[in-house]
Amino acid sequence: MENIKSYVQQHKDRFINELIELLKIPSVSADTAYSQDVIDTAEAVKESLSKAGCDFVETCDTPGYPIIYGEKIIDPNLPTVLVYGHYDVQPPDPLELWTSPPFEPVIKTTEIHPEGAIFARGACDDKGQMYMHVKALEYMVQNNVLPCNVKFMIEGEEEVGSASLAWFVERNQEKLKNDVILISDTGMISNQQPSITTGLRGLSYVEVEVTGPNRDLHSGLYGGAVANPINILAKMIAALHDEDNHITIPGFYDKVQELSLEERAEMAKAPFSLEKYKKALNLNDVYGEKGYVTNERNSIRPTLDVNGIWGGYTGEGAKTVIASKAFAKISMRLVPGQDWEEITELFTKHFTNIAPAGVTVKVTPHHGGQGYVTPIDSIGYQAANKAYTETFGVPAIPVRSGGSIPIVALFEKELKSKTILMGFGLDSDAIHSPNEHFGIFNYLKGIETIPLFYKYFVELSK
Amino acid sequence: MENIKSYVQQHKDRFINELIELLKIPSVSADTAYSQDVIDTAEAVKESLSKAGCDFVETCDTPGYPIIYGEKIIDPNLPTVLVYGHYDVQPPDPLELWTSPPFEPVIKTTEIHPEGAIFARGACDDKGQMYMHVKALEYMVQNNVLPCNVKFMIEGEEEVGSASLAWFVERNQEKLKNDVILISDTGMISNQQPSITTGLRGLSYVEVEVTGPNRDLHSGLYGGAVANPINILAKMIAALHDEDNHITIPGFYDKVQELSLEERAEMAKAPFSLEKYKKALNLNDVYGEKGYVTNERNSIRPTLDVNGIWGGYTGEGAKTVIASKAFAKISMRLVPGQDWEEITELFTKHFTNIAPAGVTVKVTPHHGGQGYVTPIDSIGYQAANKAYTETFGVPAIPVRSGGSIPIVALFEKELKSKTILMGFGLDSDAIHSPNEHFGIFNYLKGIETIPLFYKYFVELSK
Repeated sequence: MENIKSYVQQHKDRFINELIELLKIPSVSADTAYSQDVIDTAEAVKESLSKAGCDFVETCDTPGYPIIYGEKIIDPNLPTVLVYGHYDVQPPDPLELWTSPPFEPVIKTTEIHPEGAIFARGACDDKGQMYMHVKALEYMVQNNVLPCNVKFMIEGEEEVGSASLAWFVERNQEKLKNDVILISDTGMISNQQPSITTGLRGLSYVEVEVTGPNRDLHSGLYGGAVANPINILAKMIAALHDEDNHITIPGFYDKVQELSLEERAEMAKAPFSLEKYKKALNLNDVYGEKGYVTNERNSIRPTLDVNGIWGGYTGEGAKTVIASKAFAKISMRLVPGQDWEEITELFTKHFTNIAPAGVTVKVTPHHGGQGYVTPIDSIGYQAANKAYTETFGVPAIPVRSGGSIPIVALFEKELKSKTILMGFGLDSDAIHSPNEHFGIFNYLKGIETIPLFYKYFVELSK
Repeated sequence: MENIKSYVQQHKDRFINELIELLKIPSVSADTAYSQDVIDTAEAVKESLSKAGCDFVETCDTPGYPIIYGEKIIDPNLPTVLVYGHYDVQPPDPLELWTSPPFEPVIKTTEIHPEGAIFARGACDDKGQMYMHVKALEYMVQNNVLPCNVKFMIEGEEEVGSASLAWFVERNQEKLKNDVILISDTGMISNQQPSITTGLRGLSYVEVEVTGPNRDLHSGLYGGAVANPINILAKMIAALHDEDNHITIPGFYDKVQELSLEERAEMAKAPFSLEKYKKALNLNDVYGEKGYVTNERNSIRPTLDVNGIWGGYTGEGAKTVIASKAFAKISMRLVPGQDWEEITELFTKHFTNIAPAGVTVKVTPHHGGQGYVTPIDSIGYQAANKAYTETFGVPAIPVRSGGSIPIVALFEKELKSKTILMGFGLDSDAIHSPNEHFGIFNYLKGIETIPLFYKYFVELSK
């Protein structure tokens, strides 16, 4: 596989341009205003899989957005790699904070990306990382070095909870049969230090609505005499953490798998500078659960964050109103041991219980997923580590991530196979934020590393 | 003044149509998108004063929206009534809760208004109530019964704090010289029971901004490790009240004028049904400061309400983001004794103090005004009471209101005269809310009652 580097060098402009075309389509799954764009993106992905060398591709209808399935089966007796990715993206707002429009990709250099990075919504999460696999397939097919079978399953609802994917996987276990699942939807420590994500947090995402009076009221005539839904919502949100920033929902921590002191000591060895972390975010201090350090708070500990809040008058100037309703979107990141459906129930019960008389509360679960921990002694992990070691010159470090890919636990349950998370993004890539970008270095390095995973996975499987 | 009833009956269709035309102009002072409409409304008011019989009218430029001044001086030795009102209106949102468009007035009957009510933003607050005075002048001039001099001062920034009015009044004390100020911008108990507002609450309105990380973050990768500005804002808002719903800002209550038990007993005699109150708002319970009843909480006690809150993702679906910033609009209703500028300072200091490390806080004062209590033994009050008694058949009840007309205290200070608050609206008229309306009965009754105030004021002044 000597010529992968030269193949990438030779075709890199085309690789970049193809990704840029894909990034131009605003496939925001959370907002129905973009539904045609989401569908158009699915079709573009389908076409790219055909062109890259899949023998069979299809648009699989689901209750939601379609799943693109593709495969190249070279020998039923050889192992099968199932590649998962998603073609939908996060909403781009707040738009005013983007330095270039989110769906007009441009290449700009940054301190971390001197070779340039593509700035666009979805550049890293996950169009760029998903497309690395398409281009890696192209290389293997064109050069006749694909060592095993490959299947692709690219969905369009990852950013809104993958409900249709779960539906699809449950109904297509035979079609999706595989020996290992490969996903690039996570990050690595730095461009000099690759890492493999071995743990993901689960997620429970809910929306809450607090209703007070049956109409908006004048705050002078009614202020002080009725429960103000915004004040009450603030009070209820505040009550979800105690003074040590522990979450107060009864039973919330009951099933949390605590790490041993040895495991925590091992984690503490990963390179990390609190000063740099604070500086990068312009924070005068970090903030979180007492008894844990930053890298534990964002990976091995469950959390509760308000992702959005709104109510009352939010326009220019002043309006003296008591709103009839106030709303919040709240998500909890969960760790192995916690069941997201149980946690959603505990939240709902608790949040309803703490509402004072004078308001009514409605909790609507959005979606969720289980946490996940992968062993580092599997063939898949070893193959990934060898691939990284070859292209980066140093072995990958196993890392527990704070993010969630809710379907990884589902894959294990339904398809009985392990997932390897080969991420090529960086924390600084601003995924889910304005000015999301993906380094040209990272994109090309991914395309270069992935075929080596196939090679070593087949070798180690023998 | 026997013929006022017949004059109103004869001209009522025109009176209603003229008001409807005025209500069609969306004079929202809080939103600069409407600035031309605000100016157009000012001109319409000016024209209406000319037509009604003012000898002199002018558009007075200010640092903000113009003030319309008009006068009819019949004899410098006679008393002068200064009528104040405002031609600007509250923002109409949330638009989806209006049953007819806010700036397309329609007449509908309601349980309380069997004769019909005009539904439109500003119908009651304050275009309808202000325009009663214009039509009352028309009657008095047309029938040659104006018993004294009259001046009009109609402003366009009442809903955003009357900053330009204060500027104007300070500079025009001679021009505005008067013996009594007459305002219809409050309510009365019911269409069977008139009342005169003898107290108003003051106001301090601020906007707060809580900033955490310098950009929106992925809640999986950063959740639990940094202060989430929305959670922190909720916590800070929650901390502004204690468990008895007292406000926790140090010094907040220091200058509050407490009412005696006798005064509170007197207040308790006003007709009030808690059951009807709760039913009208569809509340299972009221909520407020411990130790006080509903009609005290909304009139003689200071309050703190969040009027708007926003931050993070508020669109459809889910976004797992930690917002960089969260915002709220907060207003405090103040009572006599409290100085709004001092309270604004106390709030700012306290709110900044309670911010934890990991966030920064900015407090921007919007506007404010002092509370006010008027004596019931003045000539103005007696004249108003006699007028109400004549048209309603029962005397008016003095009532302390929870609302604020910030400039009433200013008038007393700068113009050395008392204000009489002859309100003809009802609490159920939904001012500042969707479906604001003003009863045809109330509008015409106002036009009928106002000339009697002039008559008795001049008689009692002799």
